[in-house]
Amino acid sequence: MLTESQRERIEIVLVAPRNPLNIGAVARAMANFGFSHLAVVSPYIPHWREARSAVGAPELLRSAREVATLADAVTDRTLVIGTGTLTHHKPEQPVISLPALAPVVAHELDRDGRIALVFGPEKHGLTRKDLSWCQAFVEIPTDVRQPSMNLGQAAAVCLYELATRVSTSDTETERARNAPPLQQDVTDPTVSGDLDILAALVDEVMVAANYSPLAMREANRHTVRLLLRRLKLHAADQRQILGLFRRILWRLRRSPKRNVTNRLF
Amino acid sequence: MLTESQRERIEIVLVAPRNPLNIGAVARAMANFGFSHLAVVSPYIPHWREARSAVGAPELLRSAREVATLADAVTDRTLVIGTGTLTHHKPEQPVISLPALAPVVAHELDRDGRIALVFGPEKHGLTRKDLSWCQAFVEIPTDVRQPSMNLGQAAAVCLYELATRVSTSDTETERARNAPPLQQDVTDPTVSGDLDILAALVDEVMVAANYSPLAMREANRHTVRLLLRRLKLHAADQRQILGLFRRILWRLRRSPKRNVTNRLF
Repeated sequence: MLTESQRERIEIVLVAPRNPLNIGAVARAMANFGFSHLAVVSPYIPHWREARSAVGAPELLRSAREVATLADAVTDRTLVIGTGTLTHHKPEQPVISLPALAPVVAHELDRDGRIALVFGPEKHGLTRKDLSWCQAFVEIPTDVRQPSMNLGQAAAVCLYELATRVSTSDTETERARNAPPLQQDVTDPTVSGDLDILAALVDEVMVAANYSPLAMREANRHTVRLLLRRLKLHAADQRQILGLFRRILWRLRRSPKRNVTNRLF
Repeated sequence: MLTESQRERIEIVLVAPRNPLNIGAVARAMANFGFSHLAVVSPYIPHWREARSAVGAPELLRSAREVATLADAVTDRTLVIGTGTLTHHKPEQPVISLPALAPVVAHELDRDGRIALVFGPEKHGLTRKDLSWCQAFVEIPTDVRQPSMNLGQAAAVCLYELATRVSTSDTETERARNAPPLQQDVTDPTVSGDLDILAALVDEVMVAANYSPLAMREANRHTVRLLLRRLKLHAADQRQILGLFRRILWRLRRSPKRNVTNRLF
């Protein structure tokens, strides 16, 4: 079972939810299973206000954070997990079946990480772009004939799983020891926001180096986001790479007239 | 994982559901996790019709059985499991926490039993009387500060648990072997309807023997229902006891003028 302080380090993130009933249902499932931190990304404002002011809305809905982008929502997280059911295309992230999620979460909590569990909009779920901020994709194993779940029910199932099946070394050492580590044993994990800072710098460098023509810029940004999340960087690594790219960018901009790419090596 | 033929032997029973959205949500969760048999006990007809005819309602909702009483709904079942969250009073049945349900279900499926999973009305859940048809009560472990779950979400969580965690000897022998048997190894389990036939006969005998004054009759019926479900009767036992009570009743009624209770022994 999760302790109170462990639950404090798990946040639920809803990306662009539309239906106020669904928002309320997610909040209720959170209260049922003892989770209290909710962030809502770019909600449709009238429906969001309606959900928050609904009679019987749990307190956690009133204290939920409203943020503009998913990147902002997860900026202080060390493990960002997208959720959904597998339909059309396989995500670019490692896929974990929900019944196998508990050891991954336990491992992250044991190394003092902070987790975001991200749910997509009702219509289509998380986009490929949304998922580029996620280190892993959790699949709820549903029937192929009716794979798509209601948002409130999907949240209830995921939170039930976390509330009942995560055993950390605080409570039980056995499972955590056997946990298949999603990330290697990084004692000093990098938060999502620092990866974004590095990604933005790399993007600038690619432009400055004429590596990234305008038409390819968005695709390259996507690739870099994914790459940085695969690397399992220590925070110290992130700082070192950041320093390198700052230097590169400075050099690229200092010598606009010359053939800068040759001078880098 | 459950096989198709095992899923065929699990029925979901909704007692007096009110909200058509909740009925639809239960049906959707069933379709998501591959269950197709639904019985609805004494629904509020306008809302029931609305739920059935809703756009996008799964096929299983259209083919759901509509029954007058819970006794009717579970008459052919060998294991009837009530669901809920523990609030005011502890039920009279053995309580199983949902994460511990899988081996009980696996055991029942392994001995070719048929299972009903029963959900109560939205407002108050299953009553003490409803539960007297249940051999066990499954508790969804929720936070004490917000224990009460939405019906559609409760169903989703229970069905997810069954769909992902039940391992029968068809697929895996290990877990079934370690299963704490809720009922002893009865190879010839009694169906709920046969227990009701026996209970009705015992009731008649109690009245005929002046054991059960009118004011106590309902309470005694309740006690007998519970008792018969605790006994874990083989079908052959049920037939034997039934024969005995038929004989007793015949004798009681044949000699209305005498002191019948003395003549029983």
